[in-house]
Amino acid sequence: MTVETSSVVPALKNIATRLRIDSIRATTAAGSGHPTTCCSAADLVAALFFSEMRYDPKNPQHPGADRFVLSKGHAAPILYAAWSAAGYVPHDDLVKLREFTSDLEGHPTPRLPFVDVATGSLGQGLAAGVGMALNARRIGSDYRTYVLMGDGETAEGSVWEAAAMGEFHKLDSLCAIVDVNALGQSRATQLGHAMDAHQRRWEGFGWHAITIDGHDMARILAAFDESRQTRSLPTVILARTLKGKGVSFLEGAPNWHGKALKKGDELDRAIAELEGQLVDAPADLPVRPPSTSRRDETRSAVAPPSYKKGDSVATREAYGAALARLGSADSRVVALDADVKNSTFSEKFEAAHPDRFYQCFIAEQAMIGASMGLASRGAIPYPSTFAAFLTRAADFVRMTAISNLNVKMAGSHAGVSIGEDGPSQMALEDLSMMASQPNITVLYPCDAVSAEHLLINAASHAGPVYIRTSRPKTPVIYENNEAFPIGGCKVLRHSPQDVATVIGAGVTVFEALKAHDELSQKGIHIRVIDLYSVQPIDAATLTAAGRETGRLITVEDHYLTGGIGDAVARAVAPAGLSVERLAVREIPRSGKPEELLDKFGISSRQIVAAVQAATHV
Amino acid sequence: MTVETSSVVPALKNIATRLRIDSIRATTAAGSGHPTTCCSAADLVAALFFSEMRYDPKNPQHPGADRFVLSKGHAAPILYAAWSAAGYVPHDDLVKLREFTSDLEGHPTPRLPFVDVATGSLGQGLAAGVGMALNARRIGSDYRTYVLMGDGETAEGSVWEAAAMGEFHKLDSLCAIVDVNALGQSRATQLGHAMDAHQRRWEGFGWHAITIDGHDMARILAAFDESRQTRSLPTVILARTLKGKGVSFLEGAPNWHGKALKKGDELDRAIAELEGQLVDAPADLPVRPPSTSRRDETRSAVAPPSYKKGDSVATREAYGAALARLGSADSRVVALDADVKNSTFSEKFEAAHPDRFYQCFIAEQAMIGASMGLASRGAIPYPSTFAAFLTRAADFVRMTAISNLNVKMAGSHAGVSIGEDGPSQMALEDLSMMASQPNITVLYPCDAVSAEHLLINAASHAGPVYIRTSRPKTPVIYENNEAFPIGGCKVLRHSPQDVATVIGAGVTVFEALKAHDELSQKGIHIRVIDLYSVQPIDAATLTAAGRETGRLITVEDHYLTGGIGDAVARAVAPAGLSVERLAVREIPRSGKPEELLDKFGISSRQIVAAVQAATHV
Repeated sequence: MTVETSSVVPALKNIATRLRIDSIRATTAAGSGHPTTCCSAADLVAALFFSEMRYDPKNPQHPGADRFVLSKGHAAPILYAAWSAAGYVPHDDLVKLREFTSDLEGHPTPRLPFVDVATGSLGQGLAAGVGMALNARRIGSDYRTYVLMGDGETAEGSVWEAAAMGEFHKLDSLCAIVDVNALGQSRATQLGHAMDAHQRRWEGFGWHAITIDGHDMARILAAFDESRQTRSLPTVILARTLKGKGVSFLEGAPNWHGKALKKGDELDRAIAELEGQLVDAPADLPVRPPSTSRRDETRSAVAPPSYKKGDSVATREAYGAALARLGSADSRVVALDADVKNSTFSEKFEAAHPDRFYQCFIAEQAMIGASMGLASRGAIPYPSTFAAFLTRAADFVRMTAISNLNVKMAGSHAGVSIGEDGPSQMALEDLSMMASQPNITVLYPCDAVSAEHLLINAASHAGPVYIRTSRPKTPVIYENNEAFPIGGCKVLRHSPQDVATVIGAGVTVFEALKAHDELSQKGIHIRVIDLYSVQPIDAATLTAAGRETGRLITVEDHYLTGGIGDAVARAVAPAGLSVERLAVREIPRSGKPEELLDKFGISSRQIVAAVQAATHV
Repeated sequence: MTVETSSVVPALKNIATRLRIDSIRATTAAGSGHPTTCCSAADLVAALFFSEMRYDPKNPQHPGADRFVLSKGHAAPILYAAWSAAGYVPHDDLVKLREFTSDLEGHPTPRLPFVDVATGSLGQGLAAGVGMALNARRIGSDYRTYVLMGDGETAEGSVWEAAAMGEFHKLDSLCAIVDVNALGQSRATQLGHAMDAHQRRWEGFGWHAITIDGHDMARILAAFDESRQTRSLPTVILARTLKGKGVSFLEGAPNWHGKALKKGDELDRAIAELEGQLVDAPADLPVRPPSTSRRDETRSAVAPPSYKKGDSVATREAYGAALARLGSADSRVVALDADVKNSTFSEKFEAAHPDRFYQCFIAEQAMIGASMGLASRGAIPYPSTFAAFLTRAADFVRMTAISNLNVKMAGSHAGVSIGEDGPSQMALEDLSMMASQPNITVLYPCDAVSAEHLLINAASHAGPVYIRTSRPKTPVIYENNEAFPIGGCKVLRHSPQDVATVIGAGVTVFEALKAHDELSQKGIHIRVIDLYSVQPIDAATLTAAGRETGRLITVEDHYLTGGIGDAVARAVAPAGLSVERLAVREIPRSGKPEELLDKFGISSRQIVAAVQAATHV
């Protein structure tokens, strides 16, 4: 450093004070926001940005730059103030906070180049940080990852899922900081300032825990130094702070969460008090440059599948096979598992690429969160588990969508067709959960060939993707070189005499084909469509089928709401068409797969009955 | 006890051996299931059912009976075997495991009277146990709650949310048991048999932790005794066990998770080995009778709301007011918060009924999980938080539905109308998440009067309910005595000249009313419907409106999928009608509420434009 050590601490204290001032001014200008949570974190943020972190203020996405995740996203104003102090955000922009025309949103989103993952749903940042640290290892970089949390958010179980992952994967490049200001939104936090209790929790999860006064700058710098020198385990810095620090009428005071100071006397008094804390010290501190060492990514063509028509292969098994081959072709591809790799067949990827396979144990939130972090740094993560258990990570899915991250989620064991294990293991709302997010692509292969192609296509499609696979073996019906563009569908049966179109996906494609054959024998012809891309959807083909055959009947191994029936109905509504739906309409139970398909209304027999019904039902 | 102490241990060991035999036989008969995880837990289960727990084998729902939650739900066969040994389940029924016609499902569900909450999604049982223990305190009963977990499932963050709640609420009637068999589904668990590491985690969360050999019956009994005598903090018994215990070729062996033994030699060898372990001891042990002390519930009429038409009141605020009054009228009503009580206004309930208000801190999974436990024991829980953060608990919502529990969930701050805080705080998929579950009632009031009535109606409606409230103040439009039956809607504007029907709910009702007034001035008349009950839905009124006005236009502060548009479309599809939809179609951003309603397509201006569009769009 060019600045003498003796002057670094006062200079950093000044920066912290200016960050407080900027945060308070911005929230007052916006008329809302969280100034007091910015004040508690200001010394920590100043130390990170102007002593500890190595980055390029002109290029926040520098691949070797240390990462900073503001997990306590409601402290957004201080993040913006820090990047302004670093020279990236024009200082005048800070007071445009929360305006529609500004990217300085109420909580950080990746519209801003210095935000890797959106935060604001508390307890997510650490899992993302785990993913970023795993990515550093993957690319052979020594960049470090810093995650700033509030103490309130450590009530979220996802924090402890991520903590366990950090312990297991020995992520010594990961440093969590907990801003223990002891005040939540509505009351004191559970542990308050009982720093020993905080420390016990983190040490219980195998972390190197350092408790400090979060307003003692020299102690902060020493803690970061200690973290950097700690090997084989991640560090958490537990910083005792005061919410509203620096402004006497805010410090540690209740009922100030999420309140901007009023313009006029209230604001003026706060700013005057803070300005009075500025001391004589160098105005600027240099930023440490980012690391440059890393491995290049490698990419080549993916070998095509090699099935024979009529082979009997579960789509989940084809998924695993294709994932392993994709991993060989593209070094960016990684896989994450929640201890079901032998059911989802992600174990095939592990066998081929053990260094890019990340075990998360039974912790689906951490799995998706780590995927967010990995994706934000250039990896293409394929996290997979039973589709039913992806609901565990629904809020992470939501934030993945808000962040528009390149995460390729896969859920196996869809629907009642899993059989005997019963409803807790059956995904019947996963299509709804995924398709609700407007930018998530939802794919649903019915056979091994389409499963492989869709998995490969997902890798080159920018943005989040969901792939739904099934438990039962199904026959291969496509040629290996068939194309499955995202947004398409396949018309499997058609004739000029078609009196209805039956639209299925996954296992119900085969029920529809069976129904077609049965009805044919009675001289009744139906069109059959494989809707392998649920979102985006092939509205043109569906609308044409509706117009030509007069009736559209959807059949899905999913509950009635938010799945294939609703997607088709939305697609054809502009043409004034409506849709008849076969779907699971009640909570199912254990039984044999074929038995359940029939009892819950989505078997070939039920399709035949629906087609033959004289009127719309 | 009538049996001499010296013979209790061998008698319990024999029971454990018989539970192992029954579990193995049942899974082999079913051809699937998890026998080895039953074997590791058998000694613990035998001790619980035939020494520790007080219950009535003839009446599993006895209100004073100790509760047993099998959180590791895949060990279902041993639960069924234990209730058979207790005399409740006919022994011959055990081999009907997993059949469609048997209630002995693959994972336990409340179809069985001895199952309070469905399990099988791991990591949920402890939160339910927290709720049951809170309920014991509420009704003044000394029943105790036992939760049996696997070590693998303690990777789920929800376990630690529940642990923190157990610590905070000093639940000394709660005893968790972790069956540390060290093997997950696909590999060794993270901590394996490192019992000290397990103990550190639990002690870090403030629990009284007792580590034992889980196959040492005397030590098991002593641990339960120690738990019963522990005051002010919950106990966890960390039991070191072997998966497959009792069968030499299964004990601690990998790759046996979720596999039934083959009929013939494999089964015969296992049974013979187990039968060889039976010793001379009394065949039956008495069961301790349940506790009888408890307070009676009290119920009276709820005072009606008292608003004036035109008053400006946020539905979330009315929710809080009504909840407090409901609590005064019905002792079963309790409220749970995730540290946003001053935003959801559940603080009004806390002020009136502090002893029935349970703070969960920022831990939404534990909040819904505890609600499940409370509801299973007769309470009527109203957990509430920002609707966006209920997505955090999506898997608990799923299991609440599978359990058909009487939980009344409320989500505030719906949609883009929250404004400046940005997308992370906006619930735009909550209707979809809730309505996907076929038995969840979904209510969405637009004004204070309807909010109060719907909250009250929810209490007397059996089963899970979701109530969506909004952040902005909206005018009161209904008389205090207006009725809001579940499944109804309100036609707010209609005339014989209506050219379209606009269907809104919540804030969009007022956009629709504005649009109505604007269009009226141009001589264009529209029908306006307040769809306060999204599920069930008033198909008759909607269909009639569609037929009479020719066009149905939905407008919702929600994403396109799974919300009001889809619900209305499903309702009117049997009549061959389709729906035009105004909904949020992309990830939104920060801004002023009115600005966002307009930019994201759901303002009165957008409704006017849609009505005036010449054709379907």
